[in-house]
Amino acid sequence: MAVYTEVSDEALKLFVDQYDIGQIQSFKGIAEGVENSNYHLQTNYGSYILTLYEKRVNPEDLPFFLGLMDYLAEKDFPCPVPIHGRDGEALKILNGKPAALISFLSGLWPKKITPNHCYSVGAAAAKMHNAAEGFSLTRENRLNKSAWKELFCETENHADQIQIGLADIIKDELDFLDKNWPEDLPSGIIHADLFPDNVFFLQNKLSGIIDFYFACKEFFAYELAICLNAWCFETDGRFNETKASNLVQGYRSKRPLNNNEISALPILARGSSMRFLLTRLFDMLHHPKGAMVNPKDPMEYLRILQFHRNISGFREYGLISG
Amino acid sequence: MAVYTEVSDEALKLFVDQYDIGQIQSFKGIAEGVENSNYHLQTNYGSYILTLYEKRVNPEDLPFFLGLMDYLAEKDFPCPVPIHGRDGEALKILNGKPAALISFLSGLWPKKITPNHCYSVGAAAAKMHNAAEGFSLTRENRLNKSAWKELFCETENHADQIQIGLADIIKDELDFLDKNWPEDLPSGIIHADLFPDNVFFLQNKLSGIIDFYFACKEFFAYELAICLNAWCFETDGRFNETKASNLVQGYRSKRPLNNNEISALPILARGSSMRFLLTRLFDMLHHPKGAMVNPKDPMEYLRILQFHRNISGFREYGLISG
Repeated sequence: MAVYTEVSDEALKLFVDQYDIGQIQSFKGIAEGVENSNYHLQTNYGSYILTLYEKRVNPEDLPFFLGLMDYLAEKDFPCPVPIHGRDGEALKILNGKPAALISFLSGLWPKKITPNHCYSVGAAAAKMHNAAEGFSLTRENRLNKSAWKELFCETENHADQIQIGLADIIKDELDFLDKNWPEDLPSGIIHADLFPDNVFFLQNKLSGIIDFYFACKEFFAYELAICLNAWCFETDGRFNETKASNLVQGYRSKRPLNNNEISALPILARGSSMRFLLTRLFDMLHHPKGAMVNPKDPMEYLRILQFHRNISGFREYGLISG
Repeated sequence: MAVYTEVSDEALKLFVDQYDIGQIQSFKGIAEGVENSNYHLQTNYGSYILTLYEKRVNPEDLPFFLGLMDYLAEKDFPCPVPIHGRDGEALKILNGKPAALISFLSGLWPKKITPNHCYSVGAAAAKMHNAAEGFSLTRENRLNKSAWKELFCETENHADQIQIGLADIIKDELDFLDKNWPEDLPSGIIHADLFPDNVFFLQNKLSGIIDFYFACKEFFAYELAICLNAWCFETDGRFNETKASNLVQGYRSKRPLNNNEISALPILARGSSMRFLLTRLFDMLHHPKGAMVNPKDPMEYLRILQFHRNISGFREYGLISG
């Protein structure tokens, strides 16, 4: 979780007065989310999430993120909807920081993943890819292959403090990814952070997806690779083929995957492992003092990376092509 | 804040099934409260707070705390009401820890204290003292004078790491408090932790008081002394006489204070300063790794203590007797 910013009573009141959402009844910091400060705001009109955008979010990207949520919601994709102020704007300033109010989405994120969850998240990812088509704004993936190299430069000297030999492994892998990264897979807007804590369920039915603050234009199959890593490994590190196969089947129930996309999954999964290994490494080394979050373990993603390095092709995920 | 315990989906469902509160719609950790893990639980019936009792709360005290809330709510005192399970019990077990579900109380705690807030909290404290009369259970103050000595034994060797000379100041003060502590002031059940974050307001009107987990039998005036320290000092350390006078006037609007109680305020305020200085010192030295709370600053209470040591009597608080 992260509540980095304390909001004063007056500031909150002035902020809420910009919207037509009734009177404040309750306001509490939420112990979830790592990048931003999130608050649960209750008024006599309903429940909302107030987000203050901290550190990693670039304010210039916010019109894209908020616009995307507006666009997806209009296409009936289950996601939070930005609330627009009386002036029509969804993006505001609070405590000197960019801030937005979004609708409260019911549901719980699953702590124990079942194959059914994997099917649902696959289907939802495909639905999102379809629904985002035609959205007028775009955003580059700021955590792409070239960003990994920069992140490595900033962490290289400390990587071996975490595990001896880690810097060499990363260097080798970055070389491999650079030489073998696919070039022309189908692409569009992806969520790019579809971890279980961003996917809500109600009575085993997916109720919505939150946190679009990494969304960007990318290969659609890269989203699946992220999900493969985030949803299909057990806590003991074992890969679960049933979950992987469910994930991909769910996806295919809403959007076709061609053979190139399927065949590219192993390298995309290696790239996705690298992305989270490096950002976690960076966060661990730059952990802000007083931040009320425990940094996530980069080594989890080293183990996932090693798994993908050791397989011979997508069939070892339990998938069949075509 | 503190969410120390992660609750699994199955455990939560089994827990909620013990109550007649409908179906789970949302469940989020709250970034407030230091002692326990608190979650906001939303069902189709309404909003609740689920509390898991961690570390400092003694499970044997829970029937007292929950019973007190039941008793106060029945007397129309604005506080959360424990929800009783189908079996009639309010105290349950979740993740192997004592747990209770309580009603959600609307309101915001004031970040910027006004004299009006002080009047209201004084009046509410007196109302609570009156309303708790006749409650059949009782509980000793576990953070009384003798506990201070024990806390000092456990922190003495490290106190000077925080400020040179601190251990000597505490030792002198404990001696003084021991020799001069009053013996026969009016007493009853007090809240004993009436800090601003435990007092909710809605449109400048006090809407309720939460967190009764330090409630105990004590001098009524000791509650006022705690409030004097928690509500009447500015962030720059200055004492605000208007706030103090409002606090006491508010109290007196609901319960009389005799001259002995008023005259004892300076020593009670020194005792209250010592209590929070020592527990904060203890918490700072025993800060659990990975706890998502920043320990509170003990030195704030050393400054408050020094203020009370330097005054000649209650009149310097801006109060008049009788």
